[in-house]
Amino acid sequence: MFKNPKTIPIVLSVIIVILAGTLVALLLFMKNQPLQTRGVPNLIEIAAMEPDSSVWGINFPNQYTTFLQTETNNARTPYGGSDPVQKLDVDPRLRTLFAGMAFSKDYKEDRGHRWSLTDVRETGRVNEKTPGTCYSCKSANTPMLWAEMGAAEFARTPFSELGKQIDQPIGCANCHEAGTMRLIVTNPALEAALQAQGKDWRTFTRQEMRTVVCANCHVEYYFAGEGKLLVFPWAKGTSIEKIEEFYNEIDFSDWTHAESGAKMIKMQHPEYELYSAGSTHFNAGVACADCHMPYTRDGAVKFSNHNVHSPLFNPAASCGTCHTDVDYVVGRVTAIQNQVWVTMSASEDALVEAIAAIKAAAETPGADPQLIEEARALHRSAQLRWDFIAAENSMGFHNPEEALRILAAATDLARQAQLKAVLAVGSTQSASR
Amino acid sequence: MFKNPKTIPIVLSVIIVILAGTLVALLLFMKNQPLQTRGVPNLIEIAAMEPDSSVWGINFPNQYTTFLQTETNNARTPYGGSDPVQKLDVDPRLRTLFAGMAFSKDYKEDRGHRWSLTDVRETGRVNEKTPGTCYSCKSANTPMLWAEMGAAEFARTPFSELGKQIDQPIGCANCHEAGTMRLIVTNPALEAALQAQGKDWRTFTRQEMRTVVCANCHVEYYFAGEGKLLVFPWAKGTSIEKIEEFYNEIDFSDWTHAESGAKMIKMQHPEYELYSAGSTHFNAGVACADCHMPYTRDGAVKFSNHNVHSPLFNPAASCGTCHTDVDYVVGRVTAIQNQVWVTMSASEDALVEAIAAIKAAAETPGADPQLIEEARALHRSAQLRWDFIAAENSMGFHNPEEALRILAAATDLARQAQLKAVLAVGSTQSASR
Repeated sequence: MFKNPKTIPIVLSVIIVILAGTLVALLLFMKNQPLQTRGVPNLIEIAAMEPDSSVWGINFPNQYTTFLQTETNNARTPYGGSDPVQKLDVDPRLRTLFAGMAFSKDYKEDRGHRWSLTDVRETGRVNEKTPGTCYSCKSANTPMLWAEMGAAEFARTPFSELGKQIDQPIGCANCHEAGTMRLIVTNPALEAALQAQGKDWRTFTRQEMRTVVCANCHVEYYFAGEGKLLVFPWAKGTSIEKIEEFYNEIDFSDWTHAESGAKMIKMQHPEYELYSAGSTHFNAGVACADCHMPYTRDGAVKFSNHNVHSPLFNPAASCGTCHTDVDYVVGRVTAIQNQVWVTMSASEDALVEAIAAIKAAAETPGADPQLIEEARALHRSAQLRWDFIAAENSMGFHNPEEALRILAAATDLARQAQLKAVLAVGSTQSASR
Repeated sequence: MFKNPKTIPIVLSVIIVILAGTLVALLLFMKNQPLQTRGVPNLIEIAAMEPDSSVWGINFPNQYTTFLQTETNNARTPYGGSDPVQKLDVDPRLRTLFAGMAFSKDYKEDRGHRWSLTDVRETGRVNEKTPGTCYSCKSANTPMLWAEMGAAEFARTPFSELGKQIDQPIGCANCHEAGTMRLIVTNPALEAALQAQGKDWRTFTRQEMRTVVCANCHVEYYFAGEGKLLVFPWAKGTSIEKIEEFYNEIDFSDWTHAESGAKMIKMQHPEYELYSAGSTHFNAGVACADCHMPYTRDGAVKFSNHNVHSPLFNPAASCGTCHTDVDYVVGRVTAIQNQVWVTMSASEDALVEAIAAIKAAAETPGADPQLIEEARALHRSAQLRWDFIAAENSMGFHNPEEALRILAAATDLARQAQLKAVLAVGSTQSASR
């Protein structure tokens, strides 16, 4: 083939160069290819902390479609649901319990996640002094705003002013990292609270995160100092006793009770704290999402239902994954909630009577001021326990025994407050004899 | 063969007669044979209501051998067991709570079934006035004595005199029918209580009877009238509220409290009432015997373990039949019992303070007698609730939510009693001004 034998090495060398070049080019091409992904490729790229959930919805139509259903899931369960009933009308004792603060004016049942922005702007509890902090758990704009402004500046900005930068209700960005879609802590207050306990959520399992992301919002919190920074009162622990200890140590109060004069704490929605306080489901490794966002199917695709609501609306999916007899377990929930409600109602009666007794004592000339102060301290202590269960959205079911234990203590303390107030008056009478 | 053809019919007739006779004889023989039995035949015949369990033990060695172990199972669980500790020393508040009655003198932890006769004779609560009724649940002689004497005569006979006919502790005859070995109601008081509710235990399933036979004894009861007849206070229902209603209606009391002057009820051991009040295990169809007498094996023979004691001593057999993670469920029992104990202890504190306040009021000249009476009624009401859970042998575990609900109410009522007593004194001072 080759007439001159000398050309053979040259031809071979050329071939080698061509092959090597092709190989390098191919490797470079492969290196620049996107990583292998499981499932279908994303249709679009989602920007970090994208506030608009409808953008995320292009890639995740099932999650987004079910998430939109939180707008219309306005049914009621025996003790809750997403129908915005005015709790003050259902249970007028609440007006007395919250006398002197905004919850005595407006205390509606919470609605679904999609309503968060509408509802926080419409509530009678917001006024010109409301800090920006109140947007913390109401919008998918917050992760980006926290990143841009910092949590302190976010909190300091007045509610009305901060609101101009907020147009989204709670959404994807509150729990997910764009791109990876992994569950993340987005609330700086939760990050700080975990850190204070020596915990790093980045080391948590996915199943743990399916509970922890709910703690971005479903927790007890307070506004610290003049800057109204959002803080979770967990430095000593997350039990009601440890939370109380913390509040007492920093001498914190949300308001002074208009009738008893006690320095009060308003509990928010400590779902995470109550549930994680050794409840049987938590201890068994069940995550919030297992019951409130059960896995569902669209054809062959399995996804977690983002229409977050009471499991009582779909017990077959929520309870049925583990419990074979769904009717039985729904009956258990009902029975437990009834027991908790009866016990909670007794706490309210005791609190209302304690408040009246302290008010009467304070109005009695010469009543023992020391005993009145002790009565007020007991009122605070009793009511924060009651509220820990009352403000928690499960009528005790998230942790039945713990809820009943705490309510029993609430009633006990409320009755002791009442007694102290009566003694404060009695001591005056003794003195006047 | 037959020379005379006429003899043929005769021979045939004889053959027929012989055959018919043989057949009849055979049928008569079969009719008089004992019925087919499953398993091995009994070695001996056990007389109806045989008091001596060792006789039954000849036919049922496994059951009897394990039953004998109730003599030596004297270990303690965190809150109970069969070790006869003096509860009055462990918790001195009990002396105040039972002031004026026998339980303030002697209140030992119960021991196993085999100790029942020894312990009832040795307790400091028995004296010359004790009626025969107290043997009702302490001996396997009682079914036969009830049959012979009738329940009324049994109850009327003094304890010391009736004791001469009693030599057996609790045994086989208390729950089983000799011969068939089926589970039966032997206590006339249970028969009457069920009848009053329109129930006939003879229609119950075997699984139901594995709970109901325990109610022969493990119930609240009282001694009715001069004849001291044993009666279960279930005519209105078996919840604590219905039992209280019943006692109030018949104006019954066990003793007058030595310090508060309240007319009190001593609760006994209402295991059946608490457990059957909608507990999750009861509702799920679990019988007392499933946990306290779990099935066990001797070689290929399966039998229920008659060493009745706390399932905490053999959770693998008791809990493990249904629950896969035994360590987990034992942890739950511990957590629940701790929560109930804390709540129960608060009830005791409230009761002790109420008693002191009522005593002080009664000793104050001119204190409002009406208010003191109201305080006493509240003391009674509070303490019978506390005792319903305290005297029940599970530290609330038989029905955790119900136990906590009842204890919360007990504390509430005790504090109200204390308050009324303080007001009774205060009103005097107002009047004296």
